[in-house]
Amino acid sequence: MTRIFLFLTFVFALVMAPNAFADKLMDDAKATFKPIPTDVREGWKFLKQAKNPTEKKYELGKMLYFEPRLSGSQLFSCHSCHNFSLGGADGQVTSIGHKWFLGPRNTPTSFNSVYNKVQFWDGRKPNLTEQAKGPITNIEEMGGSEELALAVVKSMPEYVELFKKAFPKEKDPVTFENIGQAIAIFESTLLTPNAPFDKYLKGDDKALNKQEKAGLKTFMDKGCANCHNGVNFDIEDMQPFGVAEKPEAKILAGDKGRFMISGDKKDEFSFKVPGLRNVALTAPYFHSGQVWKLEDAVAVMGSSQIGEALNKQEIADVTAFLKTLTGDQPKISVPALPASTDKTPKPDPHYSNINK
Amino acid sequence: MTRIFLFLTFVFALVMAPNAFADKLMDDAKATFKPIPTDVREGWKFLKQAKNPTEKKYELGKMLYFEPRLSGSQLFSCHSCHNFSLGGADGQVTSIGHKWFLGPRNTPTSFNSVYNKVQFWDGRKPNLTEQAKGPITNIEEMGGSEELALAVVKSMPEYVELFKKAFPKEKDPVTFENIGQAIAIFESTLLTPNAPFDKYLKGDDKALNKQEKAGLKTFMDKGCANCHNGVNFDIEDMQPFGVAEKPEAKILAGDKGRFMISGDKKDEFSFKVPGLRNVALTAPYFHSGQVWKLEDAVAVMGSSQIGEALNKQEIADVTAFLKTLTGDQPKISVPALPASTDKTPKPDPHYSNINK
Repeated sequence: MTRIFLFLTFVFALVMAPNAFADKLMDDAKATFKPIPTDVREGWKFLKQAKNPTEKKYELGKMLYFEPRLSGSQLFSCHSCHNFSLGGADGQVTSIGHKWFLGPRNTPTSFNSVYNKVQFWDGRKPNLTEQAKGPITNIEEMGGSEELALAVVKSMPEYVELFKKAFPKEKDPVTFENIGQAIAIFESTLLTPNAPFDKYLKGDDKALNKQEKAGLKTFMDKGCANCHNGVNFDIEDMQPFGVAEKPEAKILAGDKGRFMISGDKKDEFSFKVPGLRNVALTAPYFHSGQVWKLEDAVAVMGSSQIGEALNKQEIADVTAFLKTLTGDQPKISVPALPASTDKTPKPDPHYSNINK
Repeated sequence: MTRIFLFLTFVFALVMAPNAFADKLMDDAKATFKPIPTDVREGWKFLKQAKNPTEKKYELGKMLYFEPRLSGSQLFSCHSCHNFSLGGADGQVTSIGHKWFLGPRNTPTSFNSVYNKVQFWDGRKPNLTEQAKGPITNIEEMGGSEELALAVVKSMPEYVELFKKAFPKEKDPVTFENIGQAIAIFESTLLTPNAPFDKYLKGDDKALNKQEKAGLKTFMDKGCANCHNGVNFDIEDMQPFGVAEKPEAKILAGDKGRFMISGDKKDEFSFKVPGLRNVALTAPYFHSGQVWKLEDAVAVMGSSQIGEALNKQEIADVTAFLKTLTGDQPKISVPALPASTDKTPKPDPHYSNINK
């Protein structure tokens, strides 16, 4: 009897072991990461500066996100570089902007960006509202000015009406701050739920295959998840690129990151920890856009951030895991915008925002 | 008795006269113009080169319309200049293209363009398929090449699969011709039905107000409708700009139109008759984009094409009428595109298609 019992126990242990291991991995994953909410309006809970999000602000923000007349040339909108066709980014090494300026850094995605602890690669802005206002007036991006943006919006009665309805308590609602707030309220809904990994986090063990699970385990065991965790895999705000070992010069591209804003030695080479959602869609990688293959980016992170040369298998596994972070892409229909009026500033391919 | 009868006849005539007049105007309008079909797939009936339109070709064409990687820089797509937010055009005087080239002519709308008798301002292409292929390789527009476009599409297995499904009978379906056909099949559905004038054409007398009706009458009486009739107000293919009297030099902008293609003296200053649907959304006007106000464009047409200086009232009426041609704008959600692979050509802001 005892023998039979022992034998059955042994068989039971044999059958359950992989599941027990799976459960441990899933439990660890659940303790470390969170799924993207399937209701994308949940993004509103994470807004910082933009107060009282409403559908009216959302609709206005969507229009402004697609509004090329906010740019100096009136050709570029937020969507030009944060393109819904390309994972919320542009696939460029560094962005191409007003007058074909080549920007200094790679375009980060606008998807799930409400979760970012800070905004921009150098973390110079604390939230989406402040972020949204940046590129409009950046001479290397949209190349416009606050003055131009306000003149454009105020020239169209439909826009003025939409601002009044979106910000009903304000006397003069057409402000650059409210342009930023409306865009932020729209952007904060650009979530990408239902990735295979989200299904796994919700208990579907089959959502990841063996290699993807091995990659997840490596990702947690090796310490990648120390910075890349939470909903958007970016719980840390800033980290020096090269904590363990400086990446090669081509990748660093002479960019000292936050130091260029703060002048503080401890900020040298400090960059925003980027979220990893949909990372398979947003090559090339890093602030410099100098790495095209996700495998190579994983290898660089291993040596530069965790001080470990990951082997080929580990790199392949982690890459396979990262590909499970691709979720449903936002389905946004292009809004029809109000027609320009006689008062609308004319487009100017040579527009300069210097002294404006 | 006879007197009473005569009196009643008189009263009857008095009461009916405005309606009789309205009916006459409506009848004339119905004989001259046609409404835009509410089922936008009806556009497929007017395709010339693109054969056997299907939903699979439509879906592929939509992706290619939004595909920036078809351009030299991989920044510009068809949608960059034929923007659904701006009536299917770009609101620029002349288009801004690859490397910030300023194109020689104003961007025509892609909406209802399947009805165009010819394509491009100089009418150099006979249909949408040939049109769609043009800007991709035009050095002043998307600045790409056939070679690049095919390399891009072939580098992504998802695209290759979509081409196979869209063109199931072809051995090697990924061709530049099929890129053009798929885009044309998508574009031909960019119809804008339900404009107030369409409702009027379908018998709703109240869809136009008094001034708009006066404008319609003037538009027909003065001969505007000789060229601008049919569904898209462009039954004629080409006309010399300045049949009656040369427009001012600034508007002509030294552009000899079709002559620059044909070298034939009779083609001097000959341009495509543009459709007038949604014309209120697509300022500035003419091939040169030198006229911003629709009223001014109407006045120019009066003097240059019909040889008559329209008076202020007539201009205001015709303008009011033209504004009734704004229909429902296409609601198209931005398609998610396949991720680039290792084989996808890298974006190059300095790309040159010379000798390719």
